[in-house]
Amino acid sequence: MTKVKVAGFGVSLDGFAAGIDQSLDNPLGVRGPELFQWFFPTQSFRQMQGKEGGETGPDDEFARRAMAGFGAFILGRNMFGPVRGEWPDDQWKGWWGDNPPYHAPTFILTHYPRPPIEMEGGTTFYFVTDGIEVALQKAREAAGGKDIKIGGGAETVRHYIRAGHVDEIHLAVAPVVLGEGESLFSGLDLRALGYRTVEHVPTARATHIVLAK
Amino acid sequence: MTKVKVAGFGVSLDGFAAGIDQSLDNPLGVRGPELFQWFFPTQSFRQMQGKEGGETGPDDEFARRAMAGFGAFILGRNMFGPVRGEWPDDQWKGWWGDNPPYHAPTFILTHYPRPPIEMEGGTTFYFVTDGIEVALQKAREAAGGKDIKIGGGAETVRHYIRAGHVDEIHLAVAPVVLGEGESLFSGLDLRALGYRTVEHVPTARATHIVLAK
Repeated sequence: MTKVKVAGFGVSLDGFAAGIDQSLDNPLGVRGPELFQWFFPTQSFRQMQGKEGGETGPDDEFARRAMAGFGAFILGRNMFGPVRGEWPDDQWKGWWGDNPPYHAPTFILTHYPRPPIEMEGGTTFYFVTDGIEVALQKAREAAGGKDIKIGGGAETVRHYIRAGHVDEIHLAVAPVVLGEGESLFSGLDLRALGYRTVEHVPTARATHIVLAK
Repeated sequence: MTKVKVAGFGVSLDGFAAGIDQSLDNPLGVRGPELFQWFFPTQSFRQMQGKEGGETGPDDEFARRAMAGFGAFILGRNMFGPVRGEWPDDQWKGWWGDNPPYHAPTFILTHYPRPPIEMEGGTTFYFVTDGIEVALQKAREAAGGKDIKIGGGAETVRHYIRAGHVDEIHLAVAPVVLGEGESLFSGLDLRALGYRTVEHVPTARATHIVLAK
Protein backbone atom coordinates (compact mmCIF):
# COMPACT_ATOMS: atom_id res chain seq x y z
CA MET A 1 0.00 0.00 0.00
CA THR A 2 1.18 3.48 -0.78
CA LYS A 3 2.93 5.22 2.08
CA VAL A 4 3.51 8.94 2.18
CA LYS A 5 7.04 9.81 3.26
CA VAL A 6 9.32 12.69 4.01
CA ALA A 7 12.88 11.49 3.38
CA GLY A 8 16.38 12.87 3.34
CA PHE A 9 15.08 15.97 5.02
CA GLY A 10 18.03 17.96 6.31
CA VAL A 11 17.54 19.82 9.55
CA SER A 12 19.92 21.61 11.87
CA LEU A 13 20.31 21.02 15.60
CA ASP A 14 18.19 24.05 16.21
CA GLY A 15 15.45 22.74 13.94
CA PHE A 16 15.91 24.73 10.78
CA ALA A 17 15.45 23.31 7.33
CA ALA A 18 17.43 24.51 4.38
CA GLY A 19 15.96 26.94 2.00
CA ILE A 20 15.95 30.52 3.21
CA ASP A 21 16.81 33.08 0.57
CA GLN A 22 17.10 30.55 -2.20
CA SER A 23 18.48 32.01 -5.36
CA LEU A 24 19.77 30.87 -8.70
CA ASP A 25 23.26 31.20 -7.32
CA ASN A 26 22.41 29.47 -4.07
CA PRO A 27 19.57 26.99 -4.63
CA LEU A 28 19.87 25.44 -1.17
CA GLY A 29 19.57 28.82 0.49
CA VAL A 30 21.82 30.54 3.00
CA ARG A 31 23.83 27.93 4.90
CA GLY A 32 21.67 25.24 3.28
CA PRO A 33 24.72 23.30 2.08
CA GLU A 34 25.76 22.80 5.72
CA LEU A 35 22.71 20.59 6.16
CA PHE A 36 23.73 18.27 3.37
CA GLN A 37 27.35 17.45 4.18
CA TRP A 38 26.19 13.87 4.75
CA PHE A 39 24.65 13.74 1.26
CA PHE A 40 27.20 15.28 -1.11
CA PRO A 41 29.94 12.66 -0.68
CA THR A 42 27.59 9.71 -1.26
CA GLN A 43 27.70 7.45 -4.29
CA SER A 44 23.97 8.07 -4.64
CA PHE A 45 24.39 11.83 -4.99
CA ARG A 46 27.27 11.44 -7.39
CA GLN A 47 25.21 9.08 -9.54
CA MET A 48 22.41 11.66 -9.61
CA GLN A 49 24.95 13.98 -11.19
CA GLY A 50 26.23 11.34 -13.58
CA LYS A 51 29.51 11.00 -11.70
CA GLU A 52 31.50 7.94 -10.72
CA GLY A 53 32.66 7.02 -7.23
CA GLY A 54 31.39 8.34 -3.95
CA GLU A 55 31.02 6.85 -0.51
CA THR A 56 28.85 3.89 0.40
CA GLY A 57 27.57 3.08 3.88
CA PRO A 58 24.69 4.36 5.99
CA ASP A 59 24.66 7.92 4.60
CA ASP A 60 24.51 6.51 1.08
CA GLU A 61 21.76 4.06 2.03
CA PHE A 62 19.63 6.87 3.42
CA ALA A 63 20.38 9.01 0.35
CA ARG A 64 19.20 6.17 -1.87
CA ARG A 65 16.05 5.59 0.20
CA ALA A 66 15.35 9.30 -0.07
CA MET A 67 15.22 9.30 -3.86
CA ALA A 68 14.64 5.79 -5.25
CA GLY A 69 11.50 3.70 -5.46
CA PHE A 70 8.89 6.45 -5.22
CA GLY A 71 5.88 6.39 -7.52
CA ALA A 72 5.28 10.15 -7.27
CA PHE A 73 6.68 13.28 -5.64
CA ILE A 74 5.02 16.41 -4.30
CA LEU A 75 7.00 19.63 -4.10
CA GLY A 76 6.21 23.02 -2.73
CA ARG A 77 6.47 25.91 -5.10
CA ASN A 78 9.81 27.10 -3.78
CA MET A 79 11.35 23.71 -4.33
CA PHE A 80 10.74 24.14 -8.04
CA GLY A 81 11.96 27.68 -8.54
CA PRO A 82 13.73 30.47 -6.76
CA VAL A 83 11.37 33.43 -7.10
CA ARG A 84 8.40 33.92 -4.81
CA GLY A 85 5.17 34.50 -6.67
CA GLU A 86 6.33 33.56 -10.12
CA TRP A 87 9.04 31.57 -11.74
CA PRO A 88 11.71 33.60 -13.48
CA ASP A 89 10.00 32.98 -16.79
CA ASP A 90 7.58 30.58 -18.37
CA GLN A 91 10.43 28.52 -19.65
CA TRP A 92 11.63 27.68 -16.13
CA LYS A 93 11.79 23.90 -15.77
CA GLY A 94 13.16 23.59 -12.24
CA TRP A 95 16.64 23.53 -10.78
CA TRP A 96 17.72 20.22 -12.16
CA GLY A 97 18.35 20.52 -15.90
CA ASP A 98 16.79 18.28 -18.54
CA ASN A 99 16.89 15.08 -16.50
CA PRO A 100 15.64 15.79 -12.96
CA PRO A 101 16.37 13.27 -10.20
CA TYR A 102 12.72 12.29 -9.69
CA HIS A 103 12.09 9.88 -12.56
CA ALA A 104 8.39 9.83 -11.70
CA PRO A 105 5.34 12.11 -11.84
CA THR A 106 6.10 15.15 -9.72
CA PHE A 107 3.35 17.46 -8.51
CA ILE A 108 4.19 21.10 -7.85
CA LEU A 109 1.96 23.08 -5.48
CA THR A 110 1.47 26.53 -6.98
CA HIS A 111 -1.04 29.30 -7.55
CA TYR A 112 -0.06 29.57 -11.21
CA PRO A 113 -1.67 27.10 -13.62
CA ARG A 114 0.67 25.76 -16.24
CA PRO A 115 0.59 22.77 -18.60
CA PRO A 116 2.56 19.69 -17.55
CA ILE A 117 6.21 19.51 -18.58
CA GLU A 118 7.59 16.16 -19.63
CA MET A 119 11.28 15.96 -18.86
CA GLU A 120 13.87 13.33 -19.69
CA GLY A 121 14.25 10.23 -17.54
CA GLY A 122 10.63 9.75 -16.55
CA THR A 123 9.97 12.96 -14.63
CA THR A 124 6.84 14.89 -15.58
CA PHE A 125 6.06 18.08 -13.69
CA TYR A 126 2.37 18.69 -13.02
CA PHE A 127 1.23 22.01 -11.58
CA VAL A 128 -1.52 21.75 -9.00
CA THR A 129 -3.44 24.86 -8.01
CA ASP A 130 -6.12 23.22 -5.85
CA GLY A 131 -4.14 22.67 -2.67
CA ILE A 132 -2.42 19.86 -0.83
CA GLU A 133 -5.34 17.42 -0.69
CA VAL A 134 -5.87 17.47 -4.44
CA ALA A 135 -2.15 17.15 -5.06
CA LEU A 136 -2.01 14.10 -2.81
CA GLN A 137 -4.99 12.52 -4.52
CA LYS A 138 -3.37 13.03 -7.93
CA ALA A 139 -0.08 11.68 -6.63
CA ARG A 140 -1.83 8.57 -5.28
CA GLU A 141 -3.44 7.95 -8.65
CA ALA A 142 -0.11 8.41 -10.40
CA ALA A 143 1.99 6.39 -7.96
CA GLY A 144 0.60 3.00 -8.97
CA GLY A 145 0.78 1.64 -5.46
CA LYS A 146 4.33 2.83 -4.84
CA ASP A 147 5.22 5.31 -2.09
CA ILE A 148 4.87 9.06 -2.40
CA LYS A 149 7.52 11.47 -1.23
CA ILE A 150 6.74 14.95 0.04
CA GLY A 151 9.92 16.56 -1.22
CA GLY A 152 9.77 19.85 0.69
CA GLY A 153 10.22 22.62 1.49
CA ALA A 154 9.61 22.86 5.19
CA GLU A 155 6.28 24.61 4.87
CA THR A 156 4.89 21.95 2.51
CA VAL A 157 6.19 19.17 4.75
CA ARG A 158 4.58 20.83 7.77
CA HIS A 159 1.25 21.16 5.96
CA TYR A 160 1.15 17.47 5.09
CA ILE A 161 2.28 16.37 8.55
CA ARG A 162 -0.33 18.52 10.28
CA ALA A 163 -3.03 17.19 7.98
CA GLY A 164 -2.12 13.69 9.16
CA HIS A 165 -1.02 12.37 5.78
CA VAL A 166 2.62 11.53 6.42
CA ASP A 167 3.38 7.95 7.47
CA GLU A 168 7.14 8.24 7.83
CA ILE A 169 9.66 11.05 8.31
CA HIS A 170 13.38 10.58 7.76
CA LEU A 171 15.35 13.47 9.21
CA ALA A 172 19.06 13.87 8.62
CA VAL A 173 20.08 16.01 11.57
CA ALA A 174 23.25 17.90 10.74
CA PRO A 175 25.68 18.62 13.59
CA VAL A 176 25.40 22.38 13.16
CA VAL A 177 23.31 25.27 14.39
CA LEU A 178 21.91 27.53 11.68
CA GLY A 179 20.43 30.21 13.91
CA GLU A 180 17.75 31.22 11.46
CA GLY A 181 15.66 29.78 8.69
CA GLU A 182 12.40 27.98 8.26
CA SER A 183 11.70 25.99 11.41
CA LEU A 184 10.51 22.46 10.86
CA PHE A 185 9.25 21.86 14.39
CA SER A 186 7.84 25.19 15.53
CA GLY A 187 4.27 24.64 16.69
CA LEU A 188 4.36 21.07 15.40
CA ASP A 189 3.82 18.52 18.18
CA LEU A 190 5.06 15.38 16.45
CA ARG A 191 4.56 13.39 19.62
CA ALA A 192 0.90 14.32 19.89
CA LEU A 193 0.52 13.50 16.20
CA GLY A 194 1.64 9.98 17.03
CA TYR A 195 5.24 9.88 15.80
CA ARG A 196 7.89 7.79 17.51
CA THR A 197 11.49 7.08 16.59
CA VAL A 198 11.73 3.77 14.73
CA GLU A 199 15.30 4.06 13.41
CA HIS A 200 18.35 5.91 14.77
CA VAL A 201 21.52 5.67 12.72
CA PRO A 202 24.25 8.13 13.68
CA THR A 203 27.14 8.69 11.29
CA ALA A 204 30.14 10.98 11.29
CA ARG A 205 28.18 13.55 9.27
CA ALA A 206 24.57 13.33 10.45
CA THR A 207 22.17 11.64 12.80
CA HIS A 208 19.58 9.81 10.76
CA ILE A 209 16.24 9.49 12.48
CA VAL A 210 13.17 7.80 11.09
CA LEU A 211 9.90 8.73 12.78
CA ALA A 212 6.72 6.79 12.10
CA LYS A 213 3.21 6.58 13.42
CA MET B 1 41.11 31.00 33.08
CA THR B 2 37.61 30.24 34.17
CA LYS B 3 35.26 29.19 31.39
CA VAL B 4 31.52 29.19 31.72
CA LYS B 5 29.96 26.02 30.35
CA VAL B 6 26.67 24.31 29.74
CA ALA B 7 27.33 20.57 29.78
CA GLY B 8 25.40 17.35 29.59
CA PHE B 9 22.38 19.32 28.52
CA GLY B 10 19.79 16.90 27.19
CA VAL B 11 17.67 18.12 24.33
CA SER B 12 15.24 16.39 22.00
CA LEU B 13 15.31 16.44 18.18
CA ASP B 14 12.61 19.07 18.29
CA GLY B 15 14.62 21.22 20.66
CA PHE B 16 12.97 20.62 23.99
CA ALA B 17 14.85 20.37 27.25
CA ALA B 18 13.69 18.18 30.07
CA GLY B 19 11.86 19.66 32.90
CA ILE B 20 8.20 20.37 32.22
CA ASP B 21 5.86 19.53 35.08
CA GLN B 22 8.61 18.47 37.40
CA SER B 23 7.31 16.88 40.55
CA LEU B 24 8.62 14.97 43.51
CA ASP B 25 7.56 11.79 41.77
CA ASN B 26 9.03 12.85 38.45
CA PRO B 27 11.98 15.17 39.02
CA LEU B 28 13.05 15.16 35.36
CA GLY B 29 9.58 16.19 34.24
CA VAL B 30 7.24 14.61 31.74
CA ARG B 31 9.25 12.53 29.26
CA GLY B 32 12.42 13.99 30.74
CA PRO B 33 13.96 10.55 31.27
CA GLU B 34 13.83 9.98 27.50
CA LEU B 35 16.44 12.70 27.12
CA PHE B 36 18.90 10.94 29.42
CA GLN B 37 18.99 7.41 28.07
CA TRP B 38 22.62 8.10 27.15
CA PHE B 39 23.42 9.09 30.73
CA PHE B 40 21.77 6.50 32.97
CA PRO B 41 23.85 3.47 31.86
CA THR B 42 27.20 5.26 32.29
CA GLN B 43 29.75 4.39 34.93
CA SER B 44 29.79 8.06 35.82
CA PHE B 45 26.09 8.18 36.63
CA ARG B 46 26.28 4.95 38.60
CA GLN B 47 29.19 6.31 40.62
CA MET B 48 27.13 9.42 41.40
CA GLN B 49 24.63 7.04 42.98
CA GLY B 50 27.29 5.07 44.82
CA LYS B 51 26.86 2.08 42.52
CA GLU B 52 29.42 -0.18 40.86
CA GLY B 53 29.72 -0.95 37.16
CA GLY B 54 28.23 0.95 34.27
CA GLU B 55 29.35 1.58 30.73
CA THR B 56 32.49 3.40 29.71
CA GLY B 57 33.09 5.03 26.32
CA PRO B 58 32.04 8.35 24.77
CA ASP B 59 28.73 8.69 26.64
CA ASP B 60 30.56 8.13 29.91
CA GLU B 61 33.30 10.60 28.98
CA PHE B 62 30.73 13.29 28.27
CA ALA B 63 28.88 12.44 31.48
CA ARG B 64 32.12 12.87 33.42
CA ARG B 65 32.95 16.15 31.69
CA ALA B 66 29.45 17.34 32.55
CA MET B 67 29.94 16.92 36.29
CA ALA B 68 33.63 16.79 37.23
CA GLY B 69 36.22 19.51 37.51
CA PHE B 70 33.94 22.49 37.99
CA GLY B 71 34.75 25.11 40.60
CA ALA B 72 31.15 26.30 40.95
CA PHE B 73 27.66 25.62 39.64
CA ILE B 74 24.71 27.90 38.96
CA LEU B 75 21.20 26.45 38.96
CA GLY B 76 17.84 27.92 38.18
CA ARG B 77 15.27 27.75 40.88
CA ASN B 78 13.38 24.85 39.34
CA MET B 79 16.52 22.76 39.20
CA PHE B 80 16.63 22.91 42.98
CA GLY B 81 13.03 22.16 43.82
CA PRO B 82 9.76 21.14 42.25
CA VAL B 83 7.32 23.81 43.34
CA ARG B 84 7.05 27.12 41.53
CA GLY B 85 7.24 30.12 43.83
CA GLU B 86 8.40 28.33 46.93
CA TRP B 87 10.10 25.13 47.88
CA PRO B 88 7.85 22.57 49.54
CA ASP B 89 9.13 23.69 52.92
CA ASP B 90 12.08 25.49 54.43
CA GLN B 91 13.78 22.20 55.04
CA TRP B 92 13.99 21.38 51.32
CA LYS B 93 17.61 20.71 50.42
CA GLY B 94 17.27 19.85 46.75
CA TRP B 95 16.57 16.64 44.90
CA TRP B 96 19.79 14.90 45.65
CA GLY B 97 19.84 13.79 49.29
CA ASP B 98 22.60 14.60 51.76
CA ASN B 99 25.48 14.33 49.30
CA PRO B 100 24.58 16.17 46.08
CA PRO B 101 26.60 15.46 42.93
CA TYR B 102 28.09 18.97 42.72
CA HIS B 103 30.90 18.82 45.30
CA ALA B 104 31.46 22.56 44.90
CA PRO B 105 29.77 25.88 45.73
CA THR B 106 26.39 25.88 43.98
CA PHE B 107 24.45 29.08 43.45
CA ILE B 108 20.67 28.89 43.18
CA LEU B 109 18.82 31.70 41.41
CA THR B 110 15.70 32.49 43.41
CA HIS B 111 13.48 35.28 44.67
CA TYR B 112 13.46 33.85 48.18
CA PRO B 113 16.44 34.70 50.40
CA ARG B 114 17.68 31.83 52.49
CA PRO B 115 20.89 31.15 54.42
CA PRO B 116 23.46 28.90 52.71
CA ILE B 117 23.15 25.16 53.27
CA GLU B 118 26.32 23.16 53.66
CA MET B 119 25.83 19.62 52.41
CA GLU B 120 28.07 16.57 52.56
CA GLY B 121 30.79 16.04 49.97
CA GLY B 122 31.75 19.67 49.38
CA THR B 123 28.48 21.06 48.02
CA THR B 124 27.23 24.28 49.60
CA PHE B 125 24.01 25.78 48.29
CA TYR B 126 23.94 29.58 48.16
CA PHE B 127 20.71 31.39 47.35
CA VAL B 128 21.12 34.41 45.11
CA THR B 129 18.27 36.90 44.80
CA ASP B 130 20.08 39.57 42.78
CA GLY B 131 19.92 38.01 39.34
CA ILE B 132 22.15 36.16 36.92
CA GLU B 133 25.01 38.67 36.80
CA VAL B 134 25.48 38.67 40.56
CA ALA B 135 25.24 34.89 40.67
CA LEU B 136 27.96 34.63 38.01
CA GLN B 137 30.17 37.06 39.86
CA LYS B 138 29.83 35.08 43.08
CA ALA B 139 30.45 31.85 41.21
CA ARG B 140 33.62 33.29 39.67
CA GLU B 141 34.90 34.29 43.08
CA ALA B 142 34.10 30.85 44.47
CA ALA B 143 35.45 28.85 41.52
CA GLY B 144 39.11 29.56 42.23
CA GLY B 145 40.00 29.70 38.55
CA LYS B 146 38.18 26.49 37.67
CA ASP B 147 35.29 26.37 35.21
CA ILE B 148 31.72 27.23 36.08
CA LYS B 149 28.77 25.14 34.94
CA ILE B 150 25.34 26.60 34.27
CA GLY B 151 23.40 23.56 35.35
CA GLY B 152 19.96 24.43 33.98
CA GLY B 153 17.10 24.53 33.48
CA ALA B 154 16.52 25.71 29.96
CA GLU B 155 15.40 29.18 30.93
CA THR B 156 18.49 29.80 33.04
CA VAL B 157 20.74 28.44 30.29
CA ARG B 158 19.03 30.69 27.76
CA HIS B 159 19.48 33.74 29.99
CA TYR B 160 23.21 33.17 30.33
CA ILE B 161 23.68 32.39 26.64
CA ARG B 162 21.81 35.50 25.56
CA ALA B 163 23.84 37.63 27.96
CA GLY B 164 26.96 36.39 26.20
CA HIS B 165 28.47 34.63 29.22
CA VAL B 166 28.62 31.04 28.01
CA ASP B 167 31.88 29.91 26.40
CA GLU B 168 30.92 26.33 25.62
CA ILE B 169 27.70 24.35 25.25
CA HIS B 170 27.62 20.57 25.27
CA LEU B 171 24.30 19.27 24.02
CA ALA B 172 23.36 15.61 24.19
CA VAL B 173 20.75 15.36 21.48
CA ALA B 174 18.46 12.42 22.19
CA PRO B 175 17.01 10.55 19.19
CA VAL B 176 13.42 11.33 20.18
CA VAL B 177 10.80 13.98 19.62
CA LEU B 178 9.13 15.30 22.78
CA GLY B 179 6.51 17.47 21.12
CA GLU B 180 6.22 19.89 24.02
CA GLY B 181 8.32 21.32 26.78
CA GLU B 182 10.68 24.19 27.33
CA SER B 183 12.37 25.01 24.04
CA LEU B 184 16.09 25.56 24.23
CA PHE B 185 16.45 27.21 20.82
CA SER B 186 13.30 29.26 20.37
CA GLY B 187 14.29 32.82 19.57
CA LEU B 188 17.93 32.03 20.31
CA ASP B 189 20.17 32.56 17.29
CA LEU B 190 23.25 30.65 18.40
CA ARG B 191 24.89 31.28 15.07
CA ALA B 192 24.57 35.05 15.37
CA LEU B 193 25.86 34.77 18.94
CA GLY B 194 29.03 33.28 17.50
CA TYR B 195 28.69 29.57 18.26
CA ARG B 196 30.09 26.91 15.96
CA THR B 197 30.30 23.15 16.33
CA VAL B 198 33.72 22.17 17.67
CA GLU B 199 33.01 18.53 18.57
CA HIS B 200 30.53 16.01 17.14
CA VAL B 201 30.48 12.58 18.72
CA PRO B 202 27.52 10.40 17.81
CA THR B 203 26.77 7.32 19.89
CA ALA B 204 24.03 4.72 19.85
CA ARG B 205 22.07 6.73 22.43
CA ALA B 206 22.75 10.40 21.66
CA THR B 207 24.51 12.83 19.41
CA HIS B 208 26.99 14.82 21.46
CA ILE B 209 27.65 18.26 20.13
CA VAL B 210 29.97 20.85 21.64
CA LEU B 211 29.41 24.41 20.50
CA ALA B 212 31.91 27.13 21.28
CA LYS B 213 32.56 30.74 20.39
